[in-house]
Amino acid sequence: MRRFGKTAHLFGAITLIAAFFLSLTTAAADEPGVVVQVNDDSLAKWSFTLTNVENIQAQLGKKKVKIEIVAFGPGIFMLERNSGVRQQLDEAMKNGVTFIACEASMREHNLARKDIYPGVGFVPSGVAEIVNKQRDGWSYLKP
Amino acid sequence: MRRFGKTAHLFGAITLIAAFFLSLTTAAADEPGVVVQVNDDSLAKWSFTLTNVENIQAQLGKKKVKIEIVAFGPGIFMLERNSGVRQQLDEAMKNGVTFIACEASMREHNLARKDIYPGVGFVPSGVAEIVNKQRDGWSYLKP
Amino acid sequence: MRRFGKTAHLFGAITLIAAFFLSLTTAAADEPGVVVQVNDDSLAKWSFTLTNVENIQAQLGKKKVKIEIVAFGPGIFMLERNSGVRQQLDEAMKNGVTFIACEASMREHNLARKDIYPGVGFVPSGVAEIVNKQRDGWSYLKP
Repeated sequence: MRRFGKTAHLFGAITLIAAFFLSLTTAAADEPGVVVQVNDDSLAKWSFTLTNVENIQAQLGKKKVKIEIVAFGPGIFMLERNSGVRQQLDEAMKNGVTFIACEASMREHNLARKDIYPGVGFVPSGVAEIVNKQRDGWSYLKP
Repeated sequence: MRRFGKTAHLFGAITLIAAFFLSLTTAAADEPGVVVQVNDDSLAKWSFTLTNVENIQAQLGKKKVKIEIVAFGPGIFMLERNSGVRQQLDEAMKNGVTFIACEASMREHNLARKDIYPGVGFVPSGVAEIVNKQRDGWSYLKP
Repeated sequence: MRRFGKTAHLFGAITLIAAFFLSLTTAAADEPGVVVQVNDDSLAKWSFTLTNVENIQAQLGKKKVKIEIVAFGPGIFMLERNSGVRQQLDEAMKNGVTFIACEASMREHNLARKDIYPGVGFVPSGVAEIVNKQRDGWSYLKP
């Protein structure tokens, strides 16, 4: 009987630990953000995308949803130092939106880091970043 | 020993309850639908999107997969009362497809609720709706 | 007390089995690939998509991430036997990328299986395939 009790205790402990780690992943699943794709060289699309992001923040709460905008391909020009949406970039950064430039696309379009708007982050591959974020449970949005 | 037994019992009960709620979320994960994005003002794209939805239903079964089409931005005109795809909207509604209009986009384009096709639902923000659905485990499709 | 011990034992066993199956689904969730959508009849878009896939493989490792490109609608022409991106298709296939043609779109555009590039797979519905992959936990990419 002592044996039964101990075995049960062990099972209980193992499953409690398992449940704890599962609860961690569940908690993490409540926290993931939204990764937003920009791959067109279109001022109208950039502006539309930034308005979409404002709407998400207005609806879900700025502090409740992380938003990361990843620009790659011809969309990389959205994040140029002299981008046509500079003012909206500033506004979005103030509101906690993260901007990420794809370095593969920068090379393709002869842009150096100094050519990119201040405050923008860098990844080797924009599409890989979008895949990684989805694998972490983030929602995906292509406006 | 009585203590051990009781503790184990308690552990077992807690983990059983945890497993029950986890199984609920697992069950729910088998059930989520597909949220389909329309944000272009293009009759061809609207028609293509509705054909895509027919194909999903034909392949996966009308009753097996919930489908919600969310129109926002310039895509909002798909759901106007005098939309060019009225007939396909009717057909899709008969087949259980849900249509959702973004109220932020309606304001932007001076459309009131009376200007929207009967049977269409409303959300404050179409993009937020798409994010919420993905967070609930729904698949995402942008035709 | 014996009763308590046995009940606890039973609880422990049940939850351990549940945890085991949950761990299986967790393990599977680490393995899913990326499903990539092509639905435009645009040589530039096809080439861009294939470059995106190269970047994903370069960044995440060819053997670490399964990639499936699904062509449907007017995008089906990407996978024609005399496609303008034949060379890139060959290269991608060598690198383990899977290509899938939508049979509904083939019918729509009067293409038979013999008109499709060798090595390409077939599904009844390309959009249903994309939904199914997402339901299996795959990331989604629409370049």
